[in-house]
Amino acid sequence: MRRVLITTAAVLILVFLTTNLFADDATTSSNSRAIDTVWMLLAAFLVFFMQAGFAMVEAGFTRAKNACNIIMKNLMDFSIGSLAYWALGFGIMFGASKAGLFGSDGFFLSAGDPSTGDGLWQIAFWLFQAVFAATAATIVSGAMAERTKFSGYLAYSAVITILIYPVVGHWIWGGGWLSKLGMIDFAGSTVVHSVGGWAGLMGAIVLGPRVGKYIDNNGGKKISKAIPGHNIPLAALGVFILWFGWFGFNPGSTTSGTNLSIATIAVTTNLAAAAGAISAMFTAWIRYKKPDASMSLNGALAGLVAITAPCAVVSPLSAVIIGLIGGILVVLAVDFFDKILHIDDPVGAVSVHGVCGMFGTLAVGLFAESRYAQAAGLGDVNGLFFGGGAKLLGVQALGAISVLAWVSVTALIMFLIIKKTIGLRVSREEELRGLDIEEHGMEAYSGFQIFTNQ
Amino acid sequence: MRRVLITTAAVLILVFLTTNLFADDATTSSNSRAIDTVWMLLAAFLVFFMQAGFAMVEAGFTRAKNACNIIMKNLMDFSIGSLAYWALGFGIMFGASKAGLFGSDGFFLSAGDPSTGDGLWQIAFWLFQAVFAATAATIVSGAMAERTKFSGYLAYSAVITILIYPVVGHWIWGGGWLSKLGMIDFAGSTVVHSVGGWAGLMGAIVLGPRVGKYIDNNGGKKISKAIPGHNIPLAALGVFILWFGWFGFNPGSTTSGTNLSIATIAVTTNLAAAAGAISAMFTAWIRYKKPDASMSLNGALAGLVAITAPCAVVSPLSAVIIGLIGGILVVLAVDFFDKILHIDDPVGAVSVHGVCGMFGTLAVGLFAESRYAQAAGLGDVNGLFFGGGAKLLGVQALGAISVLAWVSVTALIMFLIIKKTIGLRVSREEELRGLDIEEHGMEAYSGFQIFTNQ
Amino acid sequence: MRRVLITTAAVLILVFLTTNLFADDATTSSNSRAIDTVWMLLAAFLVFFMQAGFAMVEAGFTRAKNACNIIMKNLMDFSIGSLAYWALGFGIMFGASKAGLFGSDGFFLSAGDPSTGDGLWQIAFWLFQAVFAATAATIVSGAMAERTKFSGYLAYSAVITILIYPVVGHWIWGGGWLSKLGMIDFAGSTVVHSVGGWAGLMGAIVLGPRVGKYIDNNGGKKISKAIPGHNIPLAALGVFILWFGWFGFNPGSTTSGTNLSIATIAVTTNLAAAAGAISAMFTAWIRYKKPDASMSLNGALAGLVAITAPCAVVSPLSAVIIGLIGGILVVLAVDFFDKILHIDDPVGAVSVHGVCGMFGTLAVGLFAESRYAQAAGLGDVNGLFFGGGAKLLGVQALGAISVLAWVSVTALIMFLIIKKTIGLRVSREEELRGLDIEEHGMEAYSGFQIFTNQ
Repeated sequence: MRRVLITTAAVLILVFLTTNLFADDATTSSNSRAIDTVWMLLAAFLVFFMQAGFAMVEAGFTRAKNACNIIMKNLMDFSIGSLAYWALGFGIMFGASKAGLFGSDGFFLSAGDPSTGDGLWQIAFWLFQAVFAATAATIVSGAMAERTKFSGYLAYSAVITILIYPVVGHWIWGGGWLSKLGMIDFAGSTVVHSVGGWAGLMGAIVLGPRVGKYIDNNGGKKISKAIPGHNIPLAALGVFILWFGWFGFNPGSTTSGTNLSIATIAVTTNLAAAAGAISAMFTAWIRYKKPDASMSLNGALAGLVAITAPCAVVSPLSAVIIGLIGGILVVLAVDFFDKILHIDDPVGAVSVHGVCGMFGTLAVGLFAESRYAQAAGLGDVNGLFFGGGAKLLGVQALGAISVLAWVSVTALIMFLIIKKTIGLRVSREEELRGLDIEEHGMEAYSGFQIFTNQ
Repeated sequence: MRRVLITTAAVLILVFLTTNLFADDATTSSNSRAIDTVWMLLAAFLVFFMQAGFAMVEAGFTRAKNACNIIMKNLMDFSIGSLAYWALGFGIMFGASKAGLFGSDGFFLSAGDPSTGDGLWQIAFWLFQAVFAATAATIVSGAMAERTKFSGYLAYSAVITILIYPVVGHWIWGGGWLSKLGMIDFAGSTVVHSVGGWAGLMGAIVLGPRVGKYIDNNGGKKISKAIPGHNIPLAALGVFILWFGWFGFNPGSTTSGTNLSIATIAVTTNLAAAAGAISAMFTAWIRYKKPDASMSLNGALAGLVAITAPCAVVSPLSAVIIGLIGGILVVLAVDFFDKILHIDDPVGAVSVHGVCGMFGTLAVGLFAESRYAQAAGLGDVNGLFFGGGAKLLGVQALGAISVLAWVSVTALIMFLIIKKTIGLRVSREEELRGLDIEEHGMEAYSGFQIFTNQ
Repeated sequence: MRRVLITTAAVLILVFLTTNLFADDATTSSNSRAIDTVWMLLAAFLVFFMQAGFAMVEAGFTRAKNACNIIMKNLMDFSIGSLAYWALGFGIMFGASKAGLFGSDGFFLSAGDPSTGDGLWQIAFWLFQAVFAATAATIVSGAMAERTKFSGYLAYSAVITILIYPVVGHWIWGGGWLSKLGMIDFAGSTVVHSVGGWAGLMGAIVLGPRVGKYIDNNGGKKISKAIPGHNIPLAALGVFILWFGWFGFNPGSTTSGTNLSIATIAVTTNLAAAAGAISAMFTAWIRYKKPDASMSLNGALAGLVAITAPCAVVSPLSAVIIGLIGGILVVLAVDFFDKILHIDDPVGAVSVHGVCGMFGTLAVGLFAESRYAQAAGLGDVNGLFFGGGAKLLGVQALGAISVLAWVSVTALIMFLIIKKTIGLRVSREEELRGLDIEEHGMEAYSGFQIFTNQ
C-alpha cells in the first residue's frame, strides 16, 4: 500500500513536472526569440542611423551650395525606399523564388502576421532588410552629387529599391541561384555596397563631370581639378556615425542575438575599419606627401566595406589584412577613376563601395576559415589561404561579376530613360548657382559669407 | 525489494529534479526580466539621444547669433528636468492616485529598492520616464527660440517637469481618469508631444513675435517675413537623430523586450516617418513651387509624432496613411499659425508636436485594429474604420481636448507669472545683437564671417 | 505487475525528463550568456561612438584652422589604438599577472577561441576593453590641441595603448596590486579618465602654450588670453554624444545584462551629469557674470567623469551630490591650470578627466553604500559617510596617487623622447597658418570666409 502511494505520488509529481516543464520550455524558447528580435531591431536602428552618416559624409565632402540638396536626396531615398521596399522590394527579394531569379510574393508585409511570434520576427526582419535596401540606394547619391536633377533622383530611388537591389538580394540572400552555388556575402559587400557603387558609377558616367572638374591643358590633356568639400568635421562625424552603424550592419546580419558569433563579427569589423584608416592614410601620405583627412576617412569606410562579406568567416588577423588592403585600394581606385578615367565621383563612392565591395567578396574565397564559419552557422568553409580550393573563390568571383553586369546594364538603361524623360542633370546655370537655391529655393548656411564661385 | 529500490530512486530523482527545476524556473524568469530591463534601458538611451536631435534641429533652423543660447536651453531643460522629475515629477505622475488627478508618493526614487529585481526594474522605468519628461520640456524651446530670457526659461523648465507634464502623464499613463475611460496614447502623441506643443504655443503667444518677423505693408496688413535657419545640414542631422531616437521612444514604450510587438511598432514608426517626409515634400512643392528641405524634414517629424499614439495598434498600411496625413497637416498648420494667426514659432514646433500629436491621438480612434492591439497586450480595441464604434474616438478626442485645456491654462499662467517676475523676453537690443553674446558672453562660430543683421 | 509497469513508466519518463531538462538548462544558461554578450557588445558600440563625441568636442572648442587635424588625431588614435591593443595592450592588461604589475599573455586575441561560448564572450570582452583603451588615448588630443606635430602624436597613440594605459588597467581591473588592496574604480574614473587627463597634462607641459595664449602685461605678469572655439553647436553635439555613449561606458561595465544593477548605474550616471551641468553653469555665472555654454557643457562631462568610479555603489542622491561637486570643481580647475599655472589646455581635458577623475575615485571612499555595491556584485562596501572606516578612502587615494605618479613619469619620459626624435611641436609659422593646411594640405571649411588671424 505504501509503495502504491509512493508510486502514485511519483506519477502525480511527474505529471505536474511535465506540465511545468513544457510551460518552462515555452518561456526559454520565447526568451531566445526575444533576444533574437531585440538584437535584430537594435541592429536595424543602428543601420537606419547610417543614413545620417551618409548624409553628413556626402554633404561635408561637397560644396556648401549643394548641401540642402544632398540632405534632401538622402532623406528621400530612404523615405521613398522604405515605402517601395514595403510595397514591392521585399517580396521580390525574399518571396517564393521564380527560377532562382526573383521572388514573387510577400508584398506589403503580407508575410508578417502580428499575432504569432514567427510573424513578428518576420516583421522585424522586414525592417532590418528595409534599412539595408535604403543603404544601397543612398550610396549612389554621393557619386551623382552636385549636378543631378532632384526629380530624376526621386525616380531612380524607387527603381533601385523595387528592382535593381532586390533582384541581387534574391540571388544571394533570398534563395536564388548564387546562394545555391554557395556564394557567401555575409552582410552585403556585394548585395549592398557593390550594388550601390556600380549604380553610382553608371550615374556618374551618364551625368558626366561637374562643370569645371576637368580642364583641358595646353597639350590637349584633361587635368583633374580638386573641388574640396566644404565641411570636413561634418564629413568626419558622418564617418564615425557610419562606423557606429556598421556594428548593426555586420553583427546584426546574424539576425540572431543568441548566435554568439556576433562577438567575432564585431571585432573583425572594427579591426578592418581601423586598419583601412591607417593604410589609406599612409598610402595618401606617400602619394601626396601629406596625410590627407578625406582619404583616411574613406580608408575607414573602405575597410568596413571590405570586411562586410567576410566578417563572420575570417580571423581577427585576416580582418586586419583585409582592412589594410581595402585602405590601399581605395586610394588607388579614387585616383584611377578620377585621373585616368576622368569619371567624376565627388565623394569616392564608387571606389569605396564598388571596388572595396568587390574586393571584400573575393576576400571570402581567400581568407575564410572553417572554425569561424562554423561558429556563425555557415558550415565548413575554407578559403584558398586556409586549405580551401579555388572553387569558393570562383563562386565569389562569379557572383561579384554577375552583379556588376546586372547592375551596370539595368542602371544604365534606367538612367538613360530618366535622362530622356524627366531629365537627369540640372542646367549649367543651376549648377553654377547651386542646387540648394535653384532646386529647393533655400540656402544651407544662411547668414554666412560663402564664396559662391566655389 | 527491487520495486522499493526503484521507487525510492524515482522519488530521489524527483526531489533532485524538482529542486533543479525551481532553480531553472528562476533563471528563465530572470532572463525575461533581464531582457525587459536591457530593452527598456537601451530605449531610454535612444530617447536621451533625442536631446541632441532637438538641439541640432532648433539650432539649425534658427540664426547663428542665437545658437549657443538654443544649446544651453536644451542642455538645461534636460538637466533641470532630470533632477526635478527625480525629486517630484515622477511621484506626481506615477504615485498613488488622488482622485485620478495626480500621484502623491514615490518622490526621490523612493520606490526603487536596488536590492530586488522589482526595485531595479522600477529604477530603469524611472530613467525611461525621465527622458520622456525631458522631451516634452525641450519641445517648447523651439517655439520660443531667439527671444526668450535665459533665466525665465530655466524657471519654465522646472515647472513643466514638476507639474504640467506629470499631471497629464498621470491622467493617461499613471492610472488617472483618462486611462480609466480607456484612452490609448501608446507612446505619447498627447502625453509628450501635445503637452510640449501647446506649452510652446502659449510661450510664443506670451512672448510675441521676433523683431522684424511681421511687417505691416501699406494696406495695414501684416506680412510674414521668412527668417531662414543658419545651418540646414545640422538641422537635418538633428532630424535623423530624432528618427533614430524614436525607435527607442515608440518600441521602447512596451517597457518590455519580451513583448514582441516591438517589431510591429518599429515598422509602423518607420513607415509613418517616411510617408510624412514624402507628403510634406509634395505639399510644399505644390504650395511653394519647390521641394523645401525644412518642410520635408518637419514632415518626417510630423509622421513620427502622429504615429506615436497609435504605433502599437495599427497596421503598417494604416501607419503609411497616418504618416501621409501628418505630413500634409504640418505644412498647412505651419502656414496657418504663421500667415493667418501671426504667431511666431521659429521651428514649427507647435505644428509638428501640438497639431500632429492631436491628430495621432485621434488616429487611434480611427485606425486601431484588434489584432495589433492584442499582440501588444492592449486588449480588443478597434477604431471607427475597423469595426469599432465612435466611443473610442470620443474618448481620444476628450483626452486630447482636456490636455489642450490643462496645458493652455497652466502654461499661460506660468508664462505670465514669469513675465511679471523674472522676465520672459530679452530687450530689443539684446535680440538684435543676438542672445549668444548678450546672454552668454560668447559666439557660436568664432572666426567665421557672419552677417549680423540677419 | 501494475506497480511494476507504473514504476517502469515513471523511470522512463524520468529519463526523458532528465534529458530534456539538461537540454533546457543549456538553453536557459545560453540565453543568459546571450543577454550578457548582446549587452556588452551594444555597450561597446556606444563607447565606440564616444570617439565621435570627443572629435566634435575637441574640434568645436578649438579654431577652424585646426579642425581637420583634430579629426585626424581622433581617427588615428582610435585606429592605431585598436590594432595596438589587439596586438599587445590587452595582454598586458588582462594577461597572467607578473607580480601584480602587468599581464604577460593573451596577445593578438589568443584567448578568444571562436568555437566556444567562453571564447566568444572573451572576444566581446576584448572589444569592450579596446574601446575603453581608445577613450583614454583620445582624451589627450584635446589637451595638446592646435600645436602638436601629427607624426609625434601617432607615436604617442601607440605608446599609451600598449604600455601606459594597460599597466594601470592591470593594477586595478586585471588582478594587479591595487585590485588586491580592494580599490574600486567601477567604470574607470582613474583607469580611463585620470590616465588620459594626466597624460594630457604632461603633453601640455612639454609642448608649452599656443602662440599668443599668454601675454606679458606691463607689470611683467602673464595674462591669459581667451582663444574661443570655432563651433559651439558642434562641441555641444559632441557632449550629447559623449553623454549618450556614457550609458554604454558605465552600465556596460557590468559586462553583463543579467546583472540588473545596470538600471541603478544608468540612473546615477544620468543624475550626476545633469547635476554637473547645472552646478558648472551657476559657478560660471557667479564667476564670469554670464552662464557660459562651454563651462556648462564641460560641467556635464565633469559629472560623468566623477560618477564613473562610484556609479555602481552609490545612491541616486549621492550621485546628484557627486555631480554637483564635479561641476564646481571643473570650473575652478580650469581657472587654476590656466590662470595660476599658465598651462594651456585648449579644451579643459586635464580638469574634466584628470581632476574630476581623481575626485570620483575618492568619492567611492566617501559615498559607497553596501546595498548598492551588493546588488552590483561588489560585496559589502561602505564609504566614510555611510558607516565605512577610512580604509577604503585610503585605498582609493593610494590608487589615484599611484596612477598619477605612474602616468606622469612615463608620459613625461615618452613626450620628451618624442620631442628629441620625431618632434612634438610644429613650427611657429605652421601653428599660425593652421595645422590643417600645413600638416594635412587641406581646409576644414573650404569656401567659407574665415578670419585666419584667429
